[in-house]
Amino acid sequence: MQHILGRVASVTPLDTASMELARSRQQQLTKPAGSLGRLEDIAIQIAGITKQPLPNVKQKAVIIMAGDHGVTKERVSAYPSAVTSQMVYNFLQGGAAINALAHHVGARVIVVDVGVAADLSHLGLHSRKVALGTANMVLEPAMTHAQMLEAIQVGIDVFDTQLDRGIDLVATGDMGIGNTTASSAIAAILLQMPVIPVVLDGFISGAAALIAVKLNPVIGTYLLAGHNSVEQGHRLILERLGLLPLLDLKLRLGEGTGAVLAMSIIEAALRAHSEMATFTEAGVSTREEK
Amino acid sequence: MQHILGRVASVTPLDTASMELARSRQQQLTKPAGSLGRLEDIAIQIAGITKQPLPNVKQKAVIIMAGDHGVTKERVSAYPSAVTSQMVYNFLQGGAAINALAHHVGARVIVVDVGVAADLSHLGLHSRKVALGTANMVLEPAMTHAQMLEAIQVGIDVFDTQLDRGIDLVATGDMGIGNTTASSAIAAILLQMPVIPVVLDGFISGAAALIAVKLNPVIGTYLLAGHNSVEQGHRLILERLGLLPLLDLKLRLGEGTGAVLAMSIIEAALRAHSEMATFTEAGVSTREEK
Repeated sequence: MQHILGRVASVTPLDTASMELARSRQQQLTKPAGSLGRLEDIAIQIAGITKQPLPNVKQKAVIIMAGDHGVTKERVSAYPSAVTSQMVYNFLQGGAAINALAHHVGARVIVVDVGVAADLSHLGLHSRKVALGTANMVLEPAMTHAQMLEAIQVGIDVFDTQLDRGIDLVATGDMGIGNTTASSAIAAILLQMPVIPVVLDGFISGAAALIAVKLNPVIGTYLLAGHNSVEQGHRLILERLGLLPLLDLKLRLGEGTGAVLAMSIIEAALRAHSEMATFTEAGVSTREEK
Repeated sequence: MQHILGRVASVTPLDTASMELARSRQQQLTKPAGSLGRLEDIAIQIAGITKQPLPNVKQKAVIIMAGDHGVTKERVSAYPSAVTSQMVYNFLQGGAAINALAHHVGARVIVVDVGVAADLSHLGLHSRKVALGTANMVLEPAMTHAQMLEAIQVGIDVFDTQLDRGIDLVATGDMGIGNTTASSAIAAILLQMPVIPVVLDGFISGAAALIAVKLNPVIGTYLLAGHNSVEQGHRLILERLGLLPLLDLKLRLGEGTGAVLAMSIIEAALRAHSEMATFTEAGVSTREEK
């Protein structure tokens, strides 16, 4: 518990010096000031997060936390719990939406079994099962306190492993029939904040981010909202977090799909920020001559 | 004139058989039906445009039509007309926003001098100057009828040349201080409709699309709105065209920047459409078992 709280408390405020340098560069690039809109804001925010006036993204990953939810016994989903493990194998074989979209943006897909209600075995799977699914929260707490801490620790460990491999931008993903409870994603959120820009996906990761920001408001400045899900409640969460979604494509799949799509926009913002010529470099007039 | 009207009239309706096959495939992919939202609509639309149930995008281009506008004598812009030619050189040297964003999505940048008010010379420039800028439309018509036809013909010719090189998805771009008149973009729009999906950029290409759709309403089905510009009037144009913008990033630069960014989303849609596994292929349950 102390370890987890320590990680959360250690999040530093954005680096204002890097942000100022980035803002100044945006003023000098060959375009009317502000005309790249939110692309400019993204570049400045990520400059502050990375402490680099010219940040770039080399390595991207989406971390999908998979788990089952006892509440499915209440028939809250159109799909049976068995679909969770079937979809985990689909991720590992590259056949799911998140695989196609991650392929498109060049992000690696990390699949973690935090609590799928079946014995899974695959070389590519990160097996860190806390339980064979949660309990039915209608009848009892979905997780014990110890399980909750263990799940968060899984997130920290998985992320640290990826950090060692290299990671500049991370998207949060989720899989679990009945995953209206945010438990698996909480882990991904809590741990990822202290190091890097994080792109949120839909309702599940949004709920987890709410908790993370409640623990430490500074975390909010590290987040980017990937998209505006059509799932009810997501808009309210983003409003509370003060985040404007980058995309509004009527997605409601989860898996990290919206977050990964938004990575492409974020990378474009950083590319414009670093590759464009300044007015001076290009010899372009900045104002009316007399 | 006959040639141009012939091209416009030759636009065929979308291929419903290909769209039906694409729609059926979307139902079979490993996700809840409809959960990829507008990505599914895009894949189905482009199936209809290309007459391919599994369309893919190999070659992309943004065509930037550059010209000057006599109306700048009325001081309608914060920048002098000289900036048009300076920016054309900036495009050709790769220093503008559109270069960075086109690089990001892998689209080639085609720069056409349709009417810049200066003598330009560069190996990479397509020189098809109709006039040294238009006349001041406050005092007289901006273009003669013959110039208007010639400008449209430039668009047809430039596009046909690119078609020979190979092109699967095209974005419309524009450059011209004071380009509230849509003349240069009209050419890009009118000619591109008959062959391929076209991604519109902001206000300039939107106004041109309005004219194209008035000439032949079928053209509207070939269009995708890249983004929602903050330029006044753009939203009204999109409403009239019945197009929902893919992005809303507060851009107001032009050059094709919003259209090129949206190419990334469109490609992602086609990738999910073609790369995902079906429920049968992945062995995933489609419904509750008893």
